[in-house]
Formats: sequence, C-alpha cells, structure tokens
Amino acid sequence: MSEMLPKSSLPFDIERPTLLLDKGRCLRNIRRMAQKAADNGVDFRPHMKTHQSADIAAWFRDAGVRAITVSSVDMAVYFANHGWDDITVAFPVNVREITKINVLAERIDLGFLVESPDVVSFLAENLVSAAGAWIKIDVGSRRTGIPWRRSQEIVDLARAVDSAGPLCLRGVLTHAGHSYQAGSLSEIRDVHRECVGRMNEVRDALSAAGFWNLSVSVGDTPTTSVVDDFEGVDEMRPGAFVFYDLKQLSIGSCDEEQIAVALACPVVAKHKERSEIVLYGGAVHLSKDSLVTREGERIFGQAARIEDDGWGPLIEGAYVTSVSQEHGILRFRSDLLEAISIGDMVAVLPVHCCLTADAMKGYVTLDGDVLSMARI
Amino acid sequence: MSEMLPKSSLPFDIERPTLLLDKGRCLRNIRRMAQKAADNGVDFRPHMKTHQSADIAAWFRDAGVRAITVSSVDMAVYFANHGWDDITVAFPVNVREITKINVLAERIDLGFLVESPDVVSFLAENLVSAAGAWIKIDVGSRRTGIPWRRSQEIVDLARAVDSAGPLCLRGVLTHAGHSYQAGSLSEIRDVHRECVGRMNEVRDALSAAGFWNLSVSVGDTPTTSVVDDFEGVDEMRPGAFVFYDLKQLSIGSCDEEQIAVALACPVVAKHKERSEIVLYGGAVHLSKDSLVTREGERIFGQAARIEDDGWGPLIEGAYVTSVSQEHGILRFRSDLLEAISIGDMVAVLPVHCCLTADAMKGYVTLDGDVLSMARI
Repeated sequence: MSEMLPKSSLPFDIERPTLLLDKGRCLRNIRRMAQKAADNGVDFRPHMKTHQSADIAAWFRDAGVRAITVSSVDMAVYFANHGWDDITVAFPVNVREITKINVLAERIDLGFLVESPDVVSFLAENLVSAAGAWIKIDVGSRRTGIPWRRSQEIVDLARAVDSAGPLCLRGVLTHAGHSYQAGSLSEIRDVHRECVGRMNEVRDALSAAGFWNLSVSVGDTPTTSVVDDFEGVDEMRPGAFVFYDLKQLSIGSCDEEQIAVALACPVVAKHKERSEIVLYGGAVHLSKDSLVTREGERIFGQAARIEDDGWGPLIEGAYVTSVSQEHGILRFRSDLLEAISIGDMVAVLPVHCCLTADAMKGYVTLDGDVLSMARI
Repeated sequence: MSEMLPKSSLPFDIERPTLLLDKGRCLRNIRRMAQKAADNGVDFRPHMKTHQSADIAAWFRDAGVRAITVSSVDMAVYFANHGWDDITVAFPVNVREITKINVLAERIDLGFLVESPDVVSFLAENLVSAAGAWIKIDVGSRRTGIPWRRSQEIVDLARAVDSAGPLCLRGVLTHAGHSYQAGSLSEIRDVHRECVGRMNEVRDALSAAGFWNLSVSVGDTPTTSVVDDFEGVDEMRPGAFVFYDLKQLSIGSCDEEQIAVALACPVVAKHKERSEIVLYGGAVHLSKDSLVTREGERIFGQAARIEDDGWGPLIEGAYVTSVSQEHGILRFRSDLLEAISIGDMVAVLPVHCCLTADAMKGYVTLDGDVLSMARI
C-alpha cells in the first residue's frame, strides 16, 4: 500500500493541514499595489492584519514600504518589535489599553482612529507621548465612524483633537467595506467614486473650519484593486490583496492566478456514492467564513490539485460544502474522484484569506520555508 | 474621564478580548455528565476537542475520568504529554501521520477510527505497535463512516481489521451530528433512539459473523445531555457539554445557567442612532460560526452584563449581528445602551464554544487564573 502515501510533489512532506504560500504571486501582488500607489502619487500604508507576519512585512519593506496599518494594539507591538516605526492602528481606540498605547507612542510614530469626543477627552488626559489621530468616517459601511453627512459633529471632534495636547490631527480615514457587497466591477468603481466624493466633502467642511492639509485615507482591497484613478485620495491601506481569496475572486477584485495562499489538506476518506471526499482541514483551519456561489450554494473553499510547483487551476464545482472542527467535506465530480486516493493531498483555496491565515498562524512557501506569524 | 476606565467588577483587569471561564459551572457540567454515565453503566470517554486544555482535563480526572477522546493526532500527543494514556482519536486515520501514530501507539493505549479497507491494509503493513480500531458508522449525519445499512461492507472491514496484526477491533462508533438539527427535545430523543437502534443492528450483524463483545460508542452533546436511557450504549464521548453555548441552548441541550464560557469584550464605540455598540471582539475571537434565531436573524453571539461574580443573564435581543476580523457589532435596545460607556466590558456568550475556545487559545477563570491550552 505504499501508493497510499504518495510523496508530495512539493519539495517537502506535508502531514497535516498546512497553509501554502506562493511567494512569487505574493510578491507580484505587493509590487503591483505599491506601483499603483506610486503611479498615483498616493501614500501606501498596507494593512498587515491579513498576513500578521514579520517575514512577509519584510517583502513590503523591499518594495519600498515604510508605513503600515494594523488592526490591534497587540499587532502594532508585534510589528514595532520587528522594526516598523510608523504604524496606524485602524481600530477605534480601546481605552483599556492606554498603558500599552503610551509605551508604543513613546517608541514609534503611532496613529489611531477616533470617533468619540469622550475618547478624545480621555486621550487628552491620559496620553503621554505625541500620537497622530485620524477621524474615522462612515461613508456607508455602517460599522464604525461618524456618518459623513454630520459635518458639524466631525468639525467639533477635530476641534477637540486639536486642543488635546499630545494629539496631532492627521486627516480623515474610512473603510468602504460595503465594496464587498458589489455585484460587478462597475459597482466597485461606483463605491469608490462615492466614497472619495464623500470623504472630500468632509475634508472641505474641515478646511472651511480652519483645518488645513488634512489627508484622506481609504482602504479596502476591492476598490484599490479595481480602480486606477485615485484623485482625491492621499493614502491607501488595503490588506487582503497580499493573498486575495475566493471572495475577492467572486467580486472581481482579482484573477485566480493572483490568489497566493491555499490550504493543503490530506484526504482521509472517500464517499463515492455521494461524490464526496473527507479532508483533514475544517473550521479551525479554513475558518467558518463562507460565500454563496452564483448557483446559490454556500461554500467554505474550492479545491485545486497540488502540482510540482504549487497548485493548479480551481477545479470546477469542487467545493468544500461543509466544515466541522477538523473535517472538511469536499464535493467532487465522480469521474475526478476516481483519481484521488486516501493519503493524497488537495489544495483548498480559502473564502477569506485573513481568517484562514489567522487560524493557521503560519505559512510554508512552495520551497518549504516556514514563515513566522504573530501569536496574538 | 476616569469613569471611562471603570475597574472591572471582576477581581482582575481585562484589557482585550478574554475568554472567561466559570469554573463552578464547568465542574458541574463535568460531574453531571460523569454521574449520568455512571448511573447508566456507560463508559465515559469525554471529547477534549472542545477545551483542548490539560488544566481542564485535570478536572475530568478529578471526576474519575481515565479515558478520553480527541480529534487529531497532534491533540493526542498533547494530552499524552500531560499524562493521559488511553486516548481515542475520533477522526479517520490520516495515513500521512503514520510516524507520529507509531510513536504514540508505543507510548499509550491508542484507538482510532477506520472506515476504509485501504487504510486497514496500510495499517496492517505500517503500524508497529498494537492499537485499538473502531469501525466508524454513519447513522445519518452523512459526514464520515460506513452507512449503517451496509452490513456486508462492515463485516468485511471487521475481518480485515481482525487479520491485521497490530489492530484490535474494539467496536463500532458513531457521531449522530444530525442531532444538532433537531427542533425539539423529543426530536433529540428520536435521533438518539434511532441512532442506538441502528448501531445495535450493526453490532448484531457483526455478532452473527463471529465478532463478539464489541462495544457501541456514541458521542454528541445534544443526545447525551437530554437522554436518560442509554440502553444499548457502552461508551459515550460528548465534548461541548463541558462549556455549552448558544447553539446548545437553542436546541434545548442545556439551560442558560450551564453555559460556562463568555468572551469579555471592551466597548470601543457607540452608535446610538442605530442602537449599536462596537466591541473589540470579532471573528478571530468568537469565530464566524452563527445561528439563526427564532425571529430569523443570523447572530454570532448574545450579550450579558459583567457582574461581580461572573456574568449576568442573557440580555434579550442583545445580539452580535455581525463580526469582522476584530470588530463585533452588538445591537442593544436603546434604553440599555444609555447605561453602557466606551471602556466598559460586555460578556458575549458564543454560538459555538469549541470554535471560540480554539480561536482564543486560553481561558481566564473568574478568579483570574489563566488556564493553558494546546497550541496546535
């Protein structure tokens, strides 16, 4: 039964669910976005929450990046410990972490988001070192931020920031997360146009109130991937573009050849009668994020073959249709199923690369190099 | 603004999302299930995948437990390293891990699941030490296992196991995961009755073929929580009962007072106009598992107040209605919202305790003790 334990065609053996990283694709994603920012004269402050890896962050540094975005104070501490000294925490200030924030603001050029006068007052009294503040604006995603129409509230908050000693107002920042609901490229472009228009109305209102030279920072992967005109934008902060995933593919932000991570999963059982194989690879590996296909089916990943130099094209209809803690159920056309044996490995492209990366806490490149990741 | 940083009413300070464990409730859950097993003369082999903690496993040992279930070889290694020497890996054998399996089978009394003649042949040739084999039966959940009706296939597999030198056939094992779809207590009892009936038909077929003294092992939390008559069952392996969660509450497996974990989340923003607060606590903390309420709403958690001795009752309608990587959006009735300030903490009871525990990788008891967890 030695054929049950095929040598992986990759240059290393994989025993258990392993997040493969195609470094070539990842570098191309990084360089393309850095180039797009440079071509448009826009500051590039990529979001590190997707990969959470100092090793991958070093590839951004090689591409000229010096300033980054993170989504928690702990993540900022991790990257500060790896030499990054200009970090925006793109999350509403968590006042309970003021001690850590003070330590960090002393060490690096720290920026964070404010949307509440109470928090600004708190920072005025409790922040020891200088830090940059961005007013978080809600341009339609309805998650965090002051709704963009409320000019007076925004101007009042700017005044509070301005009078809070250690805070320096940098600009207005948004995340147009509703771009993920777009149904077409033109809808993504519409979200971007509307977002930038609204942000510039906000900036105009602040200028009229005497706040000059404020930046506009925007940040989602769909719009920054698809749009080529960044008029009215000073800084962009996409994150997921570093890997892309099935969700981004489904909304048109990327091509299949740009997806840079795949979960290698051992096949542990076959059920021919229902055209399914059982993978060692479940919710604790892929996450439980899902998307609904055009055919109306909820899926948790899609399979590709493991090949000598990585993974092949997505196999049509080969969807992970359910996940439990460690199991994934992969539906295969029965003719393809014949070619797959227990002990083989299958690559599963994730629905949401950020959550799969966070669940896996590390990467292995196609050359077998292990990349570190924050443990937070 | 010192009122913005309220002392936690718990005897320790919490800065970031923290998984609180009510040890009293957890011990009661453990003792109740151990007692139920003892009263019924059923072997109790609890599943450790839910908590993945050697500290919590020690509480099971205090309750008389000596044999456990895990869901991966790595988890078996972790518990073997903490002194457990009778472990069933309730997952189809992953042949790629044969080296680790051999090391483990040498050290402890190891059991695993088989459902494929190819895997049994592989083990016959490659397994060095003795190990127990359970034939995995599918009684209706359609995840893994041989469908219970296929007596001949099951008998053939038993013969293959019997003739494979190092393997000792222990019995037939199932997970009636479809109990999670039950709509009422009587439906849960029906699933159990049907499951046990089918498993005993399988056992009878094996007896008729000369395989005597085989055990029947069953394992889900809904049925083992609700059923009191375990006639026809030799071993039970529930896991989630150690903590319970909103999903178990929704299907009637537990009372609210049995739920033993809650995610303590700092409040980072308030949006009165839409009756929402923004929590530091998202998909990387709670997981993205969800349930649909009776009112048809998809939710990711439900809130309770943090109180001196833990958390209070669930607040009606206070649902986490969306999660992104670090954010949770919690909808509150506006009158309750008034009482909540930025910097406060809210307890969020998880939909699925196993995935929340896996995401958090650790616990803090209400006394402030930090409990370790496997890092696998």
